[in-house]
Amino acid sequence: MGRIHTPHGTIETPGFVAVGTNGTIKSLSHHEVDKIGVELMFCNTYHLILQPGPDIVELGGGLHSFIGRKMPLITDSGGFQVFSLAYGGVASELKSKGTKKNDGSVLKITEDGVLFRSYRDGSPVLLTPETSVLAQKKLGADIIIPFDELPPYHISHESLNVSLERTHRWEKRSLDAHLANPKGQAMYAVIHGGINKEFRLKSASYLGALPFDGYSVGGSVGKDKGEMFHLLSYTLEPLDPQKPRHLLGIGDLESLSTSISYGIDTFDSSYPTKAARHGMAFTFKGNVNLTKGENKTAFRPIEEDCPCSTCQGTTLAFLHHLFKAKELSALSLATIHNLTFMIRRMRRYREQILNNEL
Amino acid sequence: MGRIHTPHGTIETPGFVAVGTNGTIKSLSHHEVDKIGVELMFCNTYHLILQPGPDIVELGGGLHSFIGRKMPLITDSGGFQVFSLAYGGVASELKSKGTKKNDGSVLKITEDGVLFRSYRDGSPVLLTPETSVLAQKKLGADIIIPFDELPPYHISHESLNVSLERTHRWEKRSLDAHLANPKGQAMYAVIHGGINKEFRLKSASYLGALPFDGYSVGGSVGKDKGEMFHLLSYTLEPLDPQKPRHLLGIGDLESLSTSISYGIDTFDSSYPTKAARHGMAFTFKGNVNLTKGENKTAFRPIEEDCPCSTCQGTTLAFLHHLFKAKELSALSLATIHNLTFMIRRMRRYREQILNNEL
Repeated sequence: MGRIHTPHGTIETPGFVAVGTNGTIKSLSHHEVDKIGVELMFCNTYHLILQPGPDIVELGGGLHSFIGRKMPLITDSGGFQVFSLAYGGVASELKSKGTKKNDGSVLKITEDGVLFRSYRDGSPVLLTPETSVLAQKKLGADIIIPFDELPPYHISHESLNVSLERTHRWEKRSLDAHLANPKGQAMYAVIHGGINKEFRLKSASYLGALPFDGYSVGGSVGKDKGEMFHLLSYTLEPLDPQKPRHLLGIGDLESLSTSISYGIDTFDSSYPTKAARHGMAFTFKGNVNLTKGENKTAFRPIEEDCPCSTCQGTTLAFLHHLFKAKELSALSLATIHNLTFMIRRMRRYREQILNNEL
Repeated sequence: MGRIHTPHGTIETPGFVAVGTNGTIKSLSHHEVDKIGVELMFCNTYHLILQPGPDIVELGGGLHSFIGRKMPLITDSGGFQVFSLAYGGVASELKSKGTKKNDGSVLKITEDGVLFRSYRDGSPVLLTPETSVLAQKKLGADIIIPFDELPPYHISHESLNVSLERTHRWEKRSLDAHLANPKGQAMYAVIHGGINKEFRLKSASYLGALPFDGYSVGGSVGKDKGEMFHLLSYTLEPLDPQKPRHLLGIGDLESLSTSISYGIDTFDSSYPTKAARHGMAFTFKGNVNLTKGENKTAFRPIEEDCPCSTCQGTTLAFLHHLFKAKELSALSLATIHNLTFMIRRMRRYREQILNNEL
């Protein structure tokens, strides 16, 4: 438990990081997001490079000014999205049993970096440690991430080793580019090594010895929660306990509580907002499917003691109606609730830690 | 200029009535709508009958309670939508040169009312003066509308006369059903007669002699603004000047200023919210197309002196980016601005009237 200080404010940990890919939480304005108490928002460099482009954001005074958010921001390197295009995510990879191939948007992967085609206008874009950091400098988030390679889940021991070594070289190049022009930003390394204990420890030791401000766990974290929890049980051990640790792209409650007990401070995930848009509302008693018929006449809020603006005055019955009528307000109302739930859930984790209950 | 008093608050006139078909302004929560200062919201009985149904709304304590809005509401009779299905709107009718036929959803039109198929589940629904008023009683809006027939724009003199007579019988039956159980609601008649002066005056005289609480101008108001303005120049003359007059479904600025000068008090239109969702922002200097490239680096609000929450902290450049990135928040941010503009525009009309400038 602790606090992460940034130029745009403090982040209480353990803390949930909401994902606002294009500089906005989907379906919400920053006014609403601020009211909910979302401390850190995660934006995706890959998407922002393609639209509106880092130069326009820089011209607009950086990401905070461009999007009009006063609170802390984190950007990733773009690597995750580019390599997901090349290899597919773990889920699609497992479904296709490792046979999923590059869809054609990734043109070339070299020691220098990755050349890919913009999904917006088809133009070629070169992403290297230096161009990724340069883009993140122009964006100007409080926390940035070095460029890394995301190897597929199905990979040979030898290929994983080759990838790990290259990722380390790329992260070092990213760190150098960052330190040449720090601009008050912090950089979190990304620990790789797939589900191989030797590689994960090697990665944590190597990156842990470099002057990063924090660490994140990335790459393939396994095909299920069991593999991920096992991995987390040893991966963080070599790291400076004073520096923040982030788990990339994980946000389900079971993973949160276990990961916190292994020493993870922050999590980013689009799951709570995506679930909301599909009519799934989170409560301390479990999920509520807002589109189910049983909610037609449920004239009570999603959760009685929830302080969110949705639960103040909106019933399950009305939300059910709005989802059935395909109204856009259904999406924002549910998103407000789920993000509020995540903030409240993290606060309870902090209380549990204080009371030695976790 | 004046004030309309309802059980849920006062409406300043001339006033703009925002359309929230399904009990919500598209893309906004009631919290946001209240902040904007939208005094009267227009909900569509036709849609609410089909989803969630008047019985569920009644069970939930009526429309205000069901949707969680404290301010005034108006519902229509459902007639407009049902007959639009049968004949098409004026625009589609003009396009198809009057050849547009019933799409099959309207099964039967008799002296009793209209039998149509639900677009939701295909079940037959009978809408009559009495069932429409009963539904509107269950919904419980502050202002309700009698059931009327909406004849097509292309219609013979004789057929229009037959339709007008039936509409008068239907409105009288609606008024009787309403007065048998007033429930604190007000009922506005709908003046018909197409673009025929004799029929319009006949309709205004007949309905004006009945104890309606207000009047609205409905039916076909012409193929262009010229026909509509001409129609408005004589239609309101026979009416009690103390009772409010509403113009149904018109919301463009040119129509507003002219109609106000002819004595119209309120207007409902989905145009400002629909335009917003298509990236068209209203300003006192004209419309701004948010999706145009010239806004890419426009680091200023839509309108400098606009007090709306969008103009407080959101630039044209960010809105342009959100529309390009197809973000849902673009739709709500633009909607907040356009509704605020309409409220401000109506306030200026009221000031102009006070200053004898209109």
